[in-house]
Amino acid sequence: MRHLMSPLDFSVQELDTLLNLAGDIQADPAKYAKICEGRKLATLFYEPSTRTRLSFEAAMMNMGGNVLGFSSADSSSAAKGESVSDTIRMISCYADICAMRHPKEGAPLVASMNSSIPVINAGDGGHQHPTQTITDLLTIRSLKGRLDNLTIGLCGDLKFGRTVHSLINALARYDNITFMLISPNELKIPDYIRTDVLEEKGIHFKEVERLEDVLSDLDILYMTRVQKERFFSEDEYIRMKDCYILNAEKMQLAREDMLVLHPLPRVNEISVEVDKDPRAVYFKQVQYGVYARMALILLLLEIKKW
Amino acid sequence: MRHLMSPLDFSVQELDTLLNLAGDIQADPAKYAKICEGRKLATLFYEPSTRTRLSFEAAMMNMGGNVLGFSSADSSSAAKGESVSDTIRMISCYADICAMRHPKEGAPLVASMNSSIPVINAGDGGHQHPTQTITDLLTIRSLKGRLDNLTIGLCGDLKFGRTVHSLINALARYDNITFMLISPNELKIPDYIRTDVLEEKGIHFKEVERLEDVLSDLDILYMTRVQKERFFSEDEYIRMKDCYILNAEKMQLAREDMLVLHPLPRVNEISVEVDKDPRAVYFKQVQYGVYARMALILLLLEIKKW
Amino acid sequence: MRHLMSPLDFSVQELDTLLNLAGDIQADPAKYAKICEGRKLATLFYEPSTRTRLSFEAAMMNMGGNVLGFSSADSSSAAKGESVSDTIRMISCYADICAMRHPKEGAPLVASMNSSIPVINAGDGGHQHPTQTITDLLTIRSLKGRLDNLTIGLCGDLKFGRTVHSLINALARYDNITFMLISPNELKIPDYIRTDVLEEKGIHFKEVERLEDVLSDLDILYMTRVQKERFFSEDEYIRMKDCYILNAEKMQLAREDMLVLHPLPRVNEISVEVDKDPRAVYFKQVQYGVYARMALILLLLEIKKW
Repeated sequence: MRHLMSPLDFSVQELDTLLNLAGDIQADPAKYAKICEGRKLATLFYEPSTRTRLSFEAAMMNMGGNVLGFSSADSSSAAKGESVSDTIRMISCYADICAMRHPKEGAPLVASMNSSIPVINAGDGGHQHPTQTITDLLTIRSLKGRLDNLTIGLCGDLKFGRTVHSLINALARYDNITFMLISPNELKIPDYIRTDVLEEKGIHFKEVERLEDVLSDLDILYMTRVQKERFFSEDEYIRMKDCYILNAEKMQLAREDMLVLHPLPRVNEISVEVDKDPRAVYFKQVQYGVYARMALILLLLEIKKW
Repeated sequence: MRHLMSPLDFSVQELDTLLNLAGDIQADPAKYAKICEGRKLATLFYEPSTRTRLSFEAAMMNMGGNVLGFSSADSSSAAKGESVSDTIRMISCYADICAMRHPKEGAPLVASMNSSIPVINAGDGGHQHPTQTITDLLTIRSLKGRLDNLTIGLCGDLKFGRTVHSLINALARYDNITFMLISPNELKIPDYIRTDVLEEKGIHFKEVERLEDVLSDLDILYMTRVQKERFFSEDEYIRMKDCYILNAEKMQLAREDMLVLHPLPRVNEISVEVDKDPRAVYFKQVQYGVYARMALILLLLEIKKW
Repeated sequence: MRHLMSPLDFSVQELDTLLNLAGDIQADPAKYAKICEGRKLATLFYEPSTRTRLSFEAAMMNMGGNVLGFSSADSSSAAKGESVSDTIRMISCYADICAMRHPKEGAPLVASMNSSIPVINAGDGGHQHPTQTITDLLTIRSLKGRLDNLTIGLCGDLKFGRTVHSLINALARYDNITFMLISPNELKIPDYIRTDVLEEKGIHFKEVERLEDVLSDLDILYMTRVQKERFFSEDEYIRMKDCYILNAEKMQLAREDMLVLHPLPRVNEISVEVDKDPRAVYFKQVQYGVYARMALILLLLEIKKW
């Protein structure tokens, strides 16, 4: 039995299998409409995340399966002091697979070690959110046709952005990837990524302060939010903030076939005027998230083989 | 693709189609038991409303469909600052149709303008609650056999009562309707209803202060609550409150075939002793609400034709 | 139509039928996989209880049925002042059977008196929790092969423990049962159990202060938590607390075939080292809880006959 804790749990080849399966689901959803009949997914969300929770639930329902669980810790046994280990043993009696979101790093890992059903980490604190990364990979591969030979801009808060770190780790395993790291000085990627991943593996990358500096070079632009509180000073924030807001004007600098991704929710880092641009694929990305989770569930339940 | 924002969105003829379909569902529910198999309803309740939410969920489940969503804003992405427009684009990837309850007037309309799935307004602030109105119409038509030639008493808070305003608007489109408007002076219907709907269309109506004044004339009595805080003074409240409480004694003044409706929940405006009276149909009304929503879902999903 | 309010609602013979049906479900779950197709269970949880709620939901889903409801009072009509009587009349239009958890004793009984669908008490305050008791009986009978001729240790807070009182009442109906009542002095079973149940029926029992005193005599050890606040003094708590914590060392005193049960959630009254011991069956008990609820639903819906 396998679990999914980190995007690197799966080999490149296994990921290929998963992404191919997701592609097949997209091509012929009717074929999968009852494949999980009689199976149950537990969504154990110790902190709310409507987007991720509903994506899992839609995925399971699309395959004829059922869903039970909780959407926040107030309505869970956690309030009564039960350990995650005990909770997962209980849930193992109720469901065939589970997706767990938890504010504490490592909680899904503890669960997986005590579980008799597959556990999917649906986000654990600032640590990992592997199904988001798989979604990002599926979106890129589906719309670009490849995961190698790409120049990828990552823009925003690269210091604390869990999604960004995971995506770098995941893409670093493919050939000829160049990263353009676009962030304010105080929000640059942490050393353990720069040194241990990028430099160690000899991956091309460039760190810049302004989106306009590299926009025209990109195959993919992955946007994330920069929170005001994370700047050193109000002055610095005012001076820099427009550099991290994507609008129609900046989109004119980008290539015809550049894709804009965003893990969502967005606040104002992408102007709504960009939504109409065919290069803006962040809502398509939501749909790919459902296909990715469907494929993942099928593989972890061993209904489909790796 | 159509949405439902206001009870007047549908023509009288379209409403007829919907009510006929609801009648057919009631007559032979088994025929519809799997008609929505593989379809998903999203219930997006930004404020709690158990009655309305569960009515939609029961409706969808009665037809073999699935349900996902949230029951209050705390567990939704709204807390993270996402716009309704972005949320509905996400939900469009997860579900085939959605019912949205929102404390802000117009939120479901904004959603419908950005949605690729049908949106049903399940109540937006003090504005509209069209499925309640369709429920009321179905109840009256099913139990009275007609929607014209009726004398309808509307009792309680006619100033702020969203349900009452919608019902007046909806019934004003049928022939020979008389409204008896029963309320304290300070809670009379607003001018834009009195002038723009009733007088403008030349509809018979009478405004009275006491339920007993007109009870014997009514085919339908539609009760709503009068909240104490809305009276001008404590004295006035004490003097008047019994006029808006329906009890067994008052029921003796009513016709044999008068029907009592109430949108529920009731607090004390109808004594529980009235529940046993066969003319009390407010719990039947709940059942009609399920049939009405089933018919609505089938039409909006274009499984059934208008 | 029948409801379930208290474990004693069913005769010993009826319980036998229920436990036999649960056994058959366990032996061949596939036979029951669609038996509730088209039926709906409402879970009305006026206070959160993830364990119990999800057990009911899993039970219904295992039989192909649907589930709707609410998991805490904040998202229910209760907040708007609706009575339980009115709520159940509404729910009767939405579902075929309901499980109600309520902080007030007697609320499910009031509901059952106004309901047109079967109501299951899923815990009402400190009063009753009959499906826990049925779960306990099923666990014991399945793993011991009998419900008579047993020596049962009940350990912990015997004064306030609803689960313990129900279990005593339920087992008192079988032949040759001996109870070992293990608790601090201030948390001994109440007189109405000691006098009215045990002494009245001439049932063997012994009250002791320390688990070690009787551990070697037991066929079954039923553990519950002792809350610190319930001791008379801090000194007393420190002196006694270790007597009510089951660990590997104490397990050495117990028989080879003694079973350890616990209604869960546990906090620290059973050391995690005990989990590996094959005599620890509290997680199996969770699984039996699902089978017990499946059988109960089938009987109350009259899909299976008593």
